[in-house]
Amino acid sequence: MASKTQEVDERFLRRALQLAERARGHTYPNPIVGAVAVKNGRILGEGYHPRPGEAHAEVLALQQAGEEARGSTVYVSLEPCDHFGRTPPCSLALIAAGVARVEVAAREENPLARGGMARLRAAGIEVAVGLLEKEAREQNEVFFTVQKTGRPFVLLKAALTLDGKVATPSGDARFVSSPASRRVAQAYRQWLPAVVVGVGTVLADDPALTVRDPDFRPFPLMLEPPPLRDPVKVVLDTAARTPPTARLFQPGPRGETARCLILVGQGAPKERILALERAGARVVELPREGSKVSLEAALRVFQEEGLDGVLLEGGPRLASAFLERGWVDKLALFLAPKLLGEGRSLLEGGKVLEHMAEAKRLSLARREELGEDLWLEAYPTTE
Amino acid sequence: MASKTQEVDERFLRRALQLAERARGHTYPNPIVGAVAVKNGRILGEGYHPRPGEAHAEVLALQQAGEEARGSTVYVSLEPCDHFGRTPPCSLALIAAGVARVEVAAREENPLARGGMARLRAAGIEVAVGLLEKEAREQNEVFFTVQKTGRPFVLLKAALTLDGKVATPSGDARFVSSPASRRVAQAYRQWLPAVVVGVGTVLADDPALTVRDPDFRPFPLMLEPPPLRDPVKVVLDTAARTPPTARLFQPGPRGETARCLILVGQGAPKERILALERAGARVVELPREGSKVSLEAALRVFQEEGLDGVLLEGGPRLASAFLERGWVDKLALFLAPKLLGEGRSLLEGGKVLEHMAEAKRLSLARREELGEDLWLEAYPTTE
Repeated sequence: MASKTQEVDERFLRRALQLAERARGHTYPNPIVGAVAVKNGRILGEGYHPRPGEAHAEVLALQQAGEEARGSTVYVSLEPCDHFGRTPPCSLALIAAGVARVEVAAREENPLARGGMARLRAAGIEVAVGLLEKEAREQNEVFFTVQKTGRPFVLLKAALTLDGKVATPSGDARFVSSPASRRVAQAYRQWLPAVVVGVGTVLADDPALTVRDPDFRPFPLMLEPPPLRDPVKVVLDTAARTPPTARLFQPGPRGETARCLILVGQGAPKERILALERAGARVVELPREGSKVSLEAALRVFQEEGLDGVLLEGGPRLASAFLERGWVDKLALFLAPKLLGEGRSLLEGGKVLEHMAEAKRLSLARREELGEDLWLEAYPTTE
Repeated sequence: MASKTQEVDERFLRRALQLAERARGHTYPNPIVGAVAVKNGRILGEGYHPRPGEAHAEVLALQQAGEEARGSTVYVSLEPCDHFGRTPPCSLALIAAGVARVEVAAREENPLARGGMARLRAAGIEVAVGLLEKEAREQNEVFFTVQKTGRPFVLLKAALTLDGKVATPSGDARFVSSPASRRVAQAYRQWLPAVVVGVGTVLADDPALTVRDPDFRPFPLMLEPPPLRDPVKVVLDTAARTPPTARLFQPGPRGETARCLILVGQGAPKERILALERAGARVVELPREGSKVSLEAALRVFQEEGLDGVLLEGGPRLASAFLERGWVDKLALFLAPKLLGEGRSLLEGGKVLEHMAEAKRLSLARREELGEDLWLEAYPTTE
């Protein structure tokens, strides 16, 4: 049984995680972080890191606590940083404030930022770590995946019928899943900095790819929605076939200018590239791999652009290509209780497997009913 | 809130339903029925209808109660029959025994058998009906479907990957789902009198189609498994291509002779038909519809053979053909957390739909985790 102290620690730590959620989608390349300063069971200060370049969570919580911070316990969702980036290290701020104890949920793994806990301990501050670590790591899975893999986090999202179809043979996909599922699906766009589709999806569906009325259930710690923002819209478009009149070029629901990145293959028609640029897109010419834009080159562009996470939203061939290369980190699937029969499958054009035993295994992390639909989240297992 | 009396009634009625389950799969064309005779809160007699031609549940319960049956309440899962079939009407037996009250879960709808409750009431017996009616109707859904539709109940069972594939392009399906799922899947074979596959499944998988080690979770009321028995094995095989050496011709795990019915198209090679007959099969030549055996003719054969329910186990084309004709009454799907990519889909060769909105809608009746797999049961909705 959890001790009374542990229960209290867990409560304040959870509060720190909840604070972090206020900035979901706004802090790249930084993680989301929340902090609470507590003395005698009373919250003296709270903070969360709102966006890159601005103050860190601990610093804001300490500021709010003021002089009272001395002797307090600070709960923080991620190990305080120990390096001079755009802001001074939080470890020094905590030492300067004279806090007595720091309770950390998840350890920092970046060698550049790591060392905060060691410095705190060296300064005589009591440091505990590991309570709610799983939740804290999940909360920042994009951040941790980028650290680990050195490439953007890729989430494959799709709505499919029970027989695995995402569209009719002619490409109609309106709509596979229910309005409730589509609202939840939209929240993933707010989370990840970019959404990626193949040009086939643009031509078939003409999606806006904006965040309009999301339902944030994917993030159970979130108490209030963060400010809405649209993802960068990316089209993989070897021959620059995206129509300059496509809906994705229109301003977002909050009047924001659409940030569009069209990745075309070398040798794509110049006049179409110009038309796309006139429509407001940034067009990048990439080498080809076979007949298509090189996905490796595309990932490098995402990285250069600071797009730490991308949401793959469309195209059975695109989904298959990413999955086959081992570049899908997570899947979010909305299964509608329908049978289509002939149609476009979730994955197409990949390597043909001889044996069922070779199928890619997933580990289901979420199985939830969403009205009539089933909502699954899964991770490819690494066997 | 349920009254104390209703709680007591529900308890004994549930017991009647549980008794009925002892004969699941053994009573066709009759329903499964259980009965309990109770006086002063004490069970005096219990019975269930074990197989056609043998005593009905009420009669067995009354026999066990003996003289004490006078003045008792008899709980029965289905309205007592009122007709002379292979046994005399149960209504008369209840009247003769002098019972005071009869509590019925589900009404009989067959005009031939109906009228039991009316006769009991006319004899001064108190009759109540409707408690646990939903459970009792579900328990006998094959029986009620046959009454309503005039054709066999068809259950489509399949194991599929999350991307809707039942086999690799070359036909390998070993194994899509986990051993736990396969044991549950086997229980459906015990339930339904026949299992139907296309010859393609026989050629690709060479299935035994027997009941070896079933897990009876599909039937939540079942307390102990009924005696195991194998279904009649049916192959739809236009050109009589089933190998006479196929595993389905081998005796079952309990030494039973395999009962095999091969439905071939008119004009199938005589020598192959003879070889199949020598292997122990009954071969029936049926008219063709297009290039295949007529499914309507096949359904008529099932009916003539007393096969009130069939389990469709194999063949994307067969599944699609039955579904398209509106002949699938229920689906049992085992979704394995895997992605295959290119492969055989659950449904193939059906009418190509232009719009996603035309997809066949299902109503999910079961969503259960079965180890790593998802186990779904669903009914096509009739819109």
